[in-house]
Amino acid sequence: MHKISIDEINQAVNGTLTGSAAILVTGVEEISEAKADQLTFIGTKKYARMWEQSLACAAIVNDSLDIEPGKGRAFVRVADADLALATVLQLFEPPPPAIGPGTHPTAVIEPTAIIGEGALIGAGCYIGARVEIGANARLYPNVTVLDDSSIGRDTIIWSGTVIRERCRVGNDCILQPNVTIGADGFGYRSSPDGRHLVKIPQIGTVWIGDGVEIGAGSCVDRGKFSATSIGDGTKIDNLVQIAHNCKLGRSCAVAGQAGMAGTATLEDGVMVGGSARIVDHVTVGAGAIIGGGAGVISDVPPGKTLLGVPADDRRQTLRLWAAQKHLPELVRQMRKK
Amino acid sequence: MHKISIDEINQAVNGTLTGSAAILVTGVEEISEAKADQLTFIGTKKYARMWEQSLACAAIVNDSLDIEPGKGRAFVRVADADLALATVLQLFEPPPPAIGPGTHPTAVIEPTAIIGEGALIGAGCYIGARVEIGANARLYPNVTVLDDSSIGRDTIIWSGTVIRERCRVGNDCILQPNVTIGADGFGYRSSPDGRHLVKIPQIGTVWIGDGVEIGAGSCVDRGKFSATSIGDGTKIDNLVQIAHNCKLGRSCAVAGQAGMAGTATLEDGVMVGGSARIVDHVTVGAGAIIGGGAGVISDVPPGKTLLGVPADDRRQTLRLWAAQKHLPELVRQMRKK
Amino acid sequence: MHKISIDEINQAVNGTLTGSAAILVTGVEEISEAKADQLTFIGTKKYARMWEQSLACAAIVNDSLDIEPGKGRAFVRVADADLALATVLQLFEPPPPAIGPGTHPTAVIEPTAIIGEGALIGAGCYIGARVEIGANARLYPNVTVLDDSSIGRDTIIWSGTVIRERCRVGNDCILQPNVTIGADGFGYRSSPDGRHLVKIPQIGTVWIGDGVEIGAGSCVDRGKFSATSIGDGTKIDNLVQIAHNCKLGRSCAVAGQAGMAGTATLEDGVMVGGSARIVDHVTVGAGAIIGGGAGVISDVPPGKTLLGVPADDRRQTLRLWAAQKHLPELVRQMRKK
Repeated sequence: MHKISIDEINQAVNGTLTGSAAILVTGVEEISEAKADQLTFIGTKKYARMWEQSLACAAIVNDSLDIEPGKGRAFVRVADADLALATVLQLFEPPPPAIGPGTHPTAVIEPTAIIGEGALIGAGCYIGARVEIGANARLYPNVTVLDDSSIGRDTIIWSGTVIRERCRVGNDCILQPNVTIGADGFGYRSSPDGRHLVKIPQIGTVWIGDGVEIGAGSCVDRGKFSATSIGDGTKIDNLVQIAHNCKLGRSCAVAGQAGMAGTATLEDGVMVGGSARIVDHVTVGAGAIIGGGAGVISDVPPGKTLLGVPADDRRQTLRLWAAQKHLPELVRQMRKK
Repeated sequence: MHKISIDEINQAVNGTLTGSAAILVTGVEEISEAKADQLTFIGTKKYARMWEQSLACAAIVNDSLDIEPGKGRAFVRVADADLALATVLQLFEPPPPAIGPGTHPTAVIEPTAIIGEGALIGAGCYIGARVEIGANARLYPNVTVLDDSSIGRDTIIWSGTVIRERCRVGNDCILQPNVTIGADGFGYRSSPDGRHLVKIPQIGTVWIGDGVEIGAGSCVDRGKFSATSIGDGTKIDNLVQIAHNCKLGRSCAVAGQAGMAGTATLEDGVMVGGSARIVDHVTVGAGAIIGGGAGVISDVPPGKTLLGVPADDRRQTLRLWAAQKHLPELVRQMRKK
Repeated sequence: MHKISIDEINQAVNGTLTGSAAILVTGVEEISEAKADQLTFIGTKKYARMWEQSLACAAIVNDSLDIEPGKGRAFVRVADADLALATVLQLFEPPPPAIGPGTHPTAVIEPTAIIGEGALIGAGCYIGARVEIGANARLYPNVTVLDDSSIGRDTIIWSGTVIRERCRVGNDCILQPNVTIGADGFGYRSSPDGRHLVKIPQIGTVWIGDGVEIGAGSCVDRGKFSATSIGDGTKIDNLVQIAHNCKLGRSCAVAGQAGMAGTATLEDGVMVGGSARIVDHVTVGAGAIIGGGAGVISDVPPGKTLLGVPADDRRQTLRLWAAQKHLPELVRQMRKK
């Protein structure tokens, strides 16, 4: 097992080491479940009280907490234990699953596709005509990329993901398993007799910037015309629906099961909570925060924090939630009069 | 690049051409992003005001708008620009990704399967025993169809989609990527000691009519017994859940992330908004409209338009939403008394 | 077609047979759709009234109902027709799709993987390095299991499902199609300039107990560190999101499209309704019931039944829903004063 000295960890997070400097740790665990060779984290008083009972040999500890490691154990004191955790996890990150070198013999690469230097393509992948795969991109087994799409350099695509034709995925992106990029948008018109739904061709594409991550099972539909687009550095969680012609800015974060209807826009730096829903043609201004489960039905000014259904100013919604506990009593009183 | 004359477009939509008849266009774009060789659409006064700044060489314009193309540009005037758009998109629709002819050598076709004339089966597909694939059906790479299922003629199945055993998909259907047809319904009973959940066998199937489209990542579970069914011409968006023994009528439209619990019924022509939820054993009457995010917990009469949680008459819910802004003040007043 | 005598069915469910004991049935159907050689179920008076019109030759009938089979037809009387149904469905359950014997020649098994005795691995599957597949496990075509993961004995994995590296799936589990196990959790921190989101490595795993079922398209993310875990016998429906470091106890049931945010906990025997949402770091106590569509934003005591957004005691929420119909009138009256 990979062992790292507490001293090395201390240096990596720029902390202050107290207690036993000779300790070697094999991994990271929550305080209640850590074993004797594991490191844990103490960011709050609640966790500080659990330290004595914990089996962990060492902890990253918030500077502000008044606590000592005790005999044979060590603390790395830092200003922000959560931030330090991200650094420590990198030290312990195991290598990714091995594929390659090059293209697995069972992958099917159409002859007109262009595969970049150092790109790895796993078993059972299909790479369509005129597709371009960037240098050092990694496609795990059973990925499908259809004709004329392009995948940027250093991008990782996990198994089961499907990228339909003429879509663009940027550099340094991560697509988790079973993602769908470029499915047809949901567009129909009534037949002249009003009895049928007639498909409107969805001839557009999807444009995904650099540094974008898309979660498992999520869907980004192609544009009706032009492109559905996801800005650089935007992160999308699992089972999220991005409908045709949505525009997402840079560095947005969209949590699990959220949904954006057609032609909705997120400006830069918007955060959308889990299961939130944004109706079609609405614009959410830069830096706005949409709470979990919220239902956004009109434009949102930049920087606003919304909550509730329909989504309203967060404090207003919290007031409503507090007040509605009294509504049954209010109605009872009204009826007595 | 494919170029189409504005005159040809005018004829296709039965419009009235004004301005420069010699213009050739290469594609369709929104008015703010169109390039000099592209066509755009002007359906509202807001868009009309953007025309002068637009680079587009031509536009489809609603008859009712008082606007002129200007020098070297052209208008095609029509009664309904949105409807005309659907027609124009067909003119510009690029050919679909090329597969075939016939079955890719890496596809696995069980010997008892029957493949219709002209059907195309992509790399890595699996076609189980006694499966029937209709004439001219197109299965993109990495589709799985398990034993005894059937796929109708001219149906298109995109990559990653899985059709389990004994299911029927009709003619002229489209299944987007990563769809699941025929997973087991969610049915359990308590063990006699009440401590475990025991699986109830889900021995039914799925029956999908003709002309049905199912969006990426959506799931249609098989019946507990008999079939979960989707009527002709019904359109289902992405990440929709259709539980066991649901019955959907003809020409329904179910938007993204909506969910129907077990044995729920949609009669013909029902529209369900995004993220709406319909509880088990409920029937939604023909032509009813369920708003986005609504929670339907009881039967809905035909033709009704519902909104809210629990779902109520749309106008009643809009009144509630307006009134609830005043609830915190109401509670404050009550407490003063 | 497989025929079973009504006498055999009667013995299987420990019932009391009345009417024609010679009847053979070929399957099970709802009372309104049953054909002349099919068995149906009568659990309520509503269904009892439909018996005379039904074509079914026999029915499982609740003891409490005052009804007779009539000439040439048969009843099997039982205390609980629903429970008996589960038993009868087992009698009629057709065999699963045939794969094997052994490993399909198009499957790719890395040389260090260990395949248990009797395990069946379908076409196009990929089994990574050092993966262990238990005895008699069944992997349908186009399943992907990445390095160092393990699949227990007798576990069934349907097509399109992806299990990423270092995850553990127990014995006797069922993973429906297109499931994703072990995608990265949704964890980012702000860059020092506050303008970017920096990925926090997700170095943990997923631990799935024995007898777990996971529905189509559902996602269980890997832990940030340590493991996201699903207890023995827990059943998860379709399109459910289980975020990083969630802990689900034993014998929980989580219905379709429900979502649990990071580090949320379900103790044993919790039931979560469809589309319900549980925020991060919340614990739901043993045996609690979360209604469909509920939004749980704080800890839930054991045994409680909650409903609504935010989730509250079920009766309290039902009172609120009843009262809110009167809110518009209340506001109108307030304004008159």
